[in-house]
Amino acid sequence: MEFSVNQIAVMLSGEVKGDGNEKIKMLAKIQDAKKGQIAFLSNPKYEQFIYSTQATAVIVKRDFIPRKEISATLILVDDPYTSFTRLLEEYHKLISFQKTGVEEPSFMHETAAVGKNIYRGAFSYIGSNARLGSNVKIYPHAYVGDNVVIGDNTIIHPGVKIYADTKIGNNCVIHSGAVIGSDGFGFAPQEDGSYKTIPQLGNVTIEDNVAIGGNTVIDCATLFGDSTLIRQGVKLDNLIQIAHNVEIGKNTVIAAQAGVSGSAKIGENCMLAGQVGVAGHLTIANYTGIGAQSGISKSINEEGLKLMGSPAVDVGSFYKSYAVFKKLPDIHNRLKELENKIQATQNESMSRD
Amino acid sequence: MEFSVNQIAVMLSGEVKGDGNEKIKMLAKIQDAKKGQIAFLSNPKYEQFIYSTQATAVIVKRDFIPRKEISATLILVDDPYTSFTRLLEEYHKLISFQKTGVEEPSFMHETAAVGKNIYRGAFSYIGSNARLGSNVKIYPHAYVGDNVVIGDNTIIHPGVKIYADTKIGNNCVIHSGAVIGSDGFGFAPQEDGSYKTIPQLGNVTIEDNVAIGGNTVIDCATLFGDSTLIRQGVKLDNLIQIAHNVEIGKNTVIAAQAGVSGSAKIGENCMLAGQVGVAGHLTIANYTGIGAQSGISKSINEEGLKLMGSPAVDVGSFYKSYAVFKKLPDIHNRLKELENKIQATQNESMSRD
Amino acid sequence: MEFSVNQIAVMLSGEVKGDGNEKIKMLAKIQDAKKGQIAFLSNPKYEQFIYSTQATAVIVKRDFIPRKEISATLILVDDPYTSFTRLLEEYHKLISFQKTGVEEPSFMHETAAVGKNIYRGAFSYIGSNARLGSNVKIYPHAYVGDNVVIGDNTIIHPGVKIYADTKIGNNCVIHSGAVIGSDGFGFAPQEDGSYKTIPQLGNVTIEDNVAIGGNTVIDCATLFGDSTLIRQGVKLDNLIQIAHNVEIGKNTVIAAQAGVSGSAKIGENCMLAGQVGVAGHLTIANYTGIGAQSGISKSINEEGLKLMGSPAVDVGSFYKSYAVFKKLPDIHNRLKELENKIQATQNESMSRD
Repeated sequence: MEFSVNQIAVMLSGEVKGDGNEKIKMLAKIQDAKKGQIAFLSNPKYEQFIYSTQATAVIVKRDFIPRKEISATLILVDDPYTSFTRLLEEYHKLISFQKTGVEEPSFMHETAAVGKNIYRGAFSYIGSNARLGSNVKIYPHAYVGDNVVIGDNTIIHPGVKIYADTKIGNNCVIHSGAVIGSDGFGFAPQEDGSYKTIPQLGNVTIEDNVAIGGNTVIDCATLFGDSTLIRQGVKLDNLIQIAHNVEIGKNTVIAAQAGVSGSAKIGENCMLAGQVGVAGHLTIANYTGIGAQSGISKSINEEGLKLMGSPAVDVGSFYKSYAVFKKLPDIHNRLKELENKIQATQNESMSRD
Repeated sequence: MEFSVNQIAVMLSGEVKGDGNEKIKMLAKIQDAKKGQIAFLSNPKYEQFIYSTQATAVIVKRDFIPRKEISATLILVDDPYTSFTRLLEEYHKLISFQKTGVEEPSFMHETAAVGKNIYRGAFSYIGSNARLGSNVKIYPHAYVGDNVVIGDNTIIHPGVKIYADTKIGNNCVIHSGAVIGSDGFGFAPQEDGSYKTIPQLGNVTIEDNVAIGGNTVIDCATLFGDSTLIRQGVKLDNLIQIAHNVEIGKNTVIAAQAGVSGSAKIGENCMLAGQVGVAGHLTIANYTGIGAQSGISKSINEEGLKLMGSPAVDVGSFYKSYAVFKKLPDIHNRLKELENKIQATQNESMSRD
Repeated sequence: MEFSVNQIAVMLSGEVKGDGNEKIKMLAKIQDAKKGQIAFLSNPKYEQFIYSTQATAVIVKRDFIPRKEISATLILVDDPYTSFTRLLEEYHKLISFQKTGVEEPSFMHETAAVGKNIYRGAFSYIGSNARLGSNVKIYPHAYVGDNVVIGDNTIIHPGVKIYADTKIGNNCVIHSGAVIGSDGFGFAPQEDGSYKTIPQLGNVTIEDNVAIGGNTVIDCATLFGDSTLIRQGVKLDNLIQIAHNVEIGKNTVIAAQAGVSGSAKIGENCMLAGQVGVAGHLTIANYTGIGAQSGISKSINEEGLKLMGSPAVDVGSFYKSYAVFKKLPDIHNRLKELENKIQATQNESMSRD
């Protein structure tokens, strides 16, 4: 990959100050950038670096006025951070579209069908009647079970396991070790204290533009025709547990190691922080924010609440209570002191009477 | 798979009301069921759906009295939910016994031995001296290390990793990404602040009828001859951590993302909810119930307790304390007010005296 | 493997009491040991077993004085536990160095290069331009992405996934299912409520002597040239989340299911217990100890603190506050009683006045 500064400026609707014919091969941070690389300056805290950087080009704000001489070519844009992010994206696309074709040995059942421009890595497995769209990438050691459907442009990273009957939309990314469609945790207690397995016969349905992190697990629904449902635009971090029959609403973001119990329904545009736990069979309204390590044990019906604690309460209340929690030994002593004073007063009063 | 309603009624010891010759191909929920499918009605809340369902047959209670006409054939049983579960199980067995034979390429060491009617998926690995029973299924990308023993009817899902010397009983199910027998976390501190690895030479022993969820990790025991022990009938959900030398008692159920530290011994028929943490080297009595996100830092010697909190206390006490926790800012204010009042009274009293 | 008691005594700088020519094949616990095995006695609680053990040899303290006759040969050393640990290590080395050579089918890109005495298991994958040192073991189903560098003597267990551009030092051990270098969780919110993926283009760098547990996930850094950094001697347990741009300092130990959020910097020689959560963009000083399930939401600047709670405070304070938390219902009642008493006193006083 090699672009001229001018080419990049066109991509970003930016204005060039300096030599636009210089060549860019890579992106880097302003304090580390070397010749042939492009960096950006957004936070004024980093301004010092622009005067010493070896970057070939730097993306800056349109109204940026240098205090000293700058050796790098500048690209002036409205929002340097957003522009840099766009460049990263373009670069990423170039990289991720490099892999195509089939590495051997790999396994594809004769009844499976795949679209154009596919990558199937060595030791990847595609089961019977699977249907894969175009530009799909199935990395090495990924397992795509029988009847699985995968939309266009979706990337299945190394070692992902997708159980039979799962449906995955377009433009999804699933990271290594994620397990999609494993049996839900359903066991019927027997009289002798043992448990009988309740077979899990539903599937997982993942809509478009979903990202799923490494080693996250999503269980299938229990009954035929039912789906554990991950709506479009959902972003799941690493090591998350999504139990059977859960629904995660559109554009909801869940951070690492959070867990959602069976049949819970999370609304749209919610944010669950790391290590949050959500109990089963409850509903969480849209735009709910839940602080790290919190536990949700009741439905949240009002939209837009911010919650904290285990069990969770309003975040402001939690911190006020927690501030007092830290003083509890002192408070307990003060209470004892008061009790003693009052006892003394009463004794005195009794001896007076 | 296709059965007549009459055949299903015989399986369930049920009584047919309507056309028993109709054919059933699938199971479904009463509100979604279509022609050729069978549903059940257990919860009266769903009764409305039985009058409009397109299901060919519905399983109902023997004493069910319809308020309107029903087009579906009915099967009358004592407990519709249990009957439906049994059907699901039968169906599941049919499905799971479909896979047999060997897909290539796969790897089995010449010294390994397997029983009858086995499935070995493509890219599955079976190490030297491994011994597998009959009807075992080793899905693609599963790794069965040297000397591993697996009983009859056990299912090893795609990508499970079983380290050398592990022993697994009959009728177990291990879900994708689970790791069985990895090194326990044992490190001896050195004078220079670094740690020396304590080699982990024991194994993991899993008894019969155990279920293990996706991406759960069970470490091996430290010393030769020792086992991390998962007793019969134990059900482990996804993403659980079981450390070295732990023992999980018969029929104990552990929900997702819980963790049990080294050498802890959990009793029989316990229930640990999601994200629970259990400290090392302690014992938990039979029939203990532990609420979600709780932390157990001391042995529990009395059977049948229900615990909550981190560190955990009796669940009733926890909720009573937590109810007051939520009022702490108010309580703190009331305490200050009392202090002021008493101070005022004393000042007054002093000025009187 | 077979050694004489005399050979072992030489290894341990120990003194033999009994028949030094006896043969040892295995290590075992003193209460379980059989003929041909060696055990140790360190804790006096186990002394009873030395008089009945069938072990061929037992390692004991130099000053140990038997109260009865012992049939086993004794090896007298300064510290029996340490000596036994050394033996375990030697044994472990012997075992782990058994695997060498290449099992087929396996995949190694023509541009990859590996050192001497390597093991590449069946279905292992080594990408383009990867560079592996000597004595490296790549177990079955392990994935080593393009441009990955791995130092000497490092062991990559079955099914580990290492994304492109990762750097791993010497003498590391990575357990099954671990994911190294997956995309960090970076998404830019859009006006319509959806999120745009911020491409993650940095890598993960793991220094020497690092251990990584089963199914742990370490995300790559966001920008080119940046690394998520695991310093030498770090020990990570199972199912841990290490987010993008995190740095874990030298010899820090983290227990299972803990999570460290993006750009956090953990110091040297810290200990994080199980299920701990660390928020993003903060710094934790060297020698910090954090109790199980605690949450760190602010930087810790002083070295050597012990913390507990969520959010965490000094461990002593936490337990003092928690002791009062358990009494909160009683305290609340006592407060109400005081309020009533004072009210009564005031009423009385008013009626007197």
